[in-house]
Amino acid sequence: MKSATRTVASLTLVLRIAYFGPEGTFTEQAARALAPGEDLTPYETVRLALQAVRDGAADAACVPIENSVEGVVPATLDGLSDGDPLVATAETILPIHFSVLKRPGSGEIRTVASHPHALAQVREWLETNLPDATPVASSSTAAAAVGVVEGDFDAAVSAPVAIEHYPLEELATGVADVRDAQTRFLMVRRPGELPAPTGADRTSIVAAAVNRTGTLSDLLVELAGRGINLTRIDARPTRNNFGEYRFFIDFEGHVAEPRIIDAMTALRRRCHLRFLGSHPRADGVAATIEEGAGNQDFLDAQAWVDAVLKGEGA
Amino acid sequence: MKSATRTVASLTLVLRIAYFGPEGTFTEQAARALAPGEDLTPYETVRLALQAVRDGAADAACVPIENSVEGVVPATLDGLSDGDPLVATAETILPIHFSVLKRPGSGEIRTVASHPHALAQVREWLETNLPDATPVASSSTAAAAVGVVEGDFDAAVSAPVAIEHYPLEELATGVADVRDAQTRFLMVRRPGELPAPTGADRTSIVAAAVNRTGTLSDLLVELAGRGINLTRIDARPTRNNFGEYRFFIDFEGHVAEPRIIDAMTALRRRCHLRFLGSHPRADGVAATIEEGAGNQDFLDAQAWVDAVLKGEGA
Repeated sequence: MKSATRTVASLTLVLRIAYFGPEGTFTEQAARALAPGEDLTPYETVRLALQAVRDGAADAACVPIENSVEGVVPATLDGLSDGDPLVATAETILPIHFSVLKRPGSGEIRTVASHPHALAQVREWLETNLPDATPVASSSTAAAAVGVVEGDFDAAVSAPVAIEHYPLEELATGVADVRDAQTRFLMVRRPGELPAPTGADRTSIVAAAVNRTGTLSDLLVELAGRGINLTRIDARPTRNNFGEYRFFIDFEGHVAEPRIIDAMTALRRRCHLRFLGSHPRADGVAATIEEGAGNQDFLDAQAWVDAVLKGEGA
Repeated sequence: MKSATRTVASLTLVLRIAYFGPEGTFTEQAARALAPGEDLTPYETVRLALQAVRDGAADAACVPIENSVEGVVPATLDGLSDGDPLVATAETILPIHFSVLKRPGSGEIRTVASHPHALAQVREWLETNLPDATPVASSSTAAAAVGVVEGDFDAAVSAPVAIEHYPLEELATGVADVRDAQTRFLMVRRPGELPAPTGADRTSIVAAAVNRTGTLSDLLVELAGRGINLTRIDARPTRNNFGEYRFFIDFEGHVAEPRIIDAMTALRRRCHLRFLGSHPRADGVAATIEEGAGNQDFLDAQAWVDAVLKGEGA
């Protein structure tokens, strides 16, 4: 998907999208969903994909943020909070169902390769369907597919998109022990124009606060007191120091809404804050708005105080 | 380390300790530190090690809980919150420094095997010291050592303890790109007698609360209002359901202290609560006690209310 227009960055119509590779993984599949028809380039690590955006080598990067089985992706959280600011402008959620790939016409399956996380997620399926095959760990689901092409293994447990890259055939598709396992992916860019609010948005921040009793409670009270619903919270130790944390907080709403502006302003007084983006939720769930905590309520309250200040009301 | 007394469980003086194996990993090293001289048995997964304790096949289990680079271990959090209750009675923190092992007298190192997480943590070291060796992923650091013994690879990146299990020699020790990477391990048992309070303790709970705005804030306010310092918080999605969470909270103090009893009682009213243990901190850091929030303050306040009730004061 390389584009001939790529060298003239300022004129190109095709966006240069970095993603956490290699080719043929779930992240490539997410990048295709979030940026159809754009110029996709795999990077070896999450950090390198983000660095490509910071350097200007890419316009945006697609990275995994959380999995319903494995939890958050530490490399993404750390990569977004260190270095120059990046903001998420879109997300997508993929079901994590694998394809089992083999060489066309090959016979008995004696070895099945994949990344250890993927092997763990299809263990029951393998025990039932390929009980005599030996599972072999590889560095990625795509590397397993390459190993099958090269004859190192008989089958690979891969992302469905892998079939488009390698001359293999599907032994099975939709394979997963946990039927509803899913991963959320973000598209991130350098700070710039924000996506418009939709009423079903997610805002992400990282708060670095001094380590004293009640710090996190103080931050969450600012959100709860404004009726703002959390969708995720993760505390990551500051590198190499157990007990000192950065808080990654996702909540419903968009930073362009008066209620969210009010909350962000209050949080900013209390801690070092980095904005990680406001964008539509992939699941389309509309924000919960409590009585007295809607945007018009915030505007009305501000108007009343303005009137008091001007001597026009009391 | 099998014990002949093992079959007579009720009379044995040697404890049966399950741990997340295989042999020769950091978890075995932690189990040895936490239970020197006891009968250690490796289990294939964290869940099976915990199940052995629940079944009575083991007296206790040693499992990893968090790593300063990779974050929490989801299998341990889920394993402790599902199934019959288990409580942590001790913890230890190990620096994550690897040994690079080879066959005695072997020559050029062309392949270096380890678990992908371990390879990631020594990547810079390998590039500097073994630039021509190909990294190969294995299912565990110990499996890599076995592969070297069997001639599949030339070197393995392993836990230091692996040298005691396999006829290999050390090419290098103390290998780690991040010098201060460390992992915390727990020893867990069925509920019973608790370790005595020391003044430098950690208490762990898991709170399952209805998913509404302010839930987590309400819980943390109960701790902050009593001057109780958090040491860790993790939100894990309820299996298969994004947006519904269980909160794993660690805080300073011991459930036998009046200030912690008061807080636990308040939390119990607000949510489903599971106690995961109170035990001494491996780092020996004493609890922060704010003015008016010490155990004597709680006792004095209770005594005053008692006196009011009896008409002996006002």
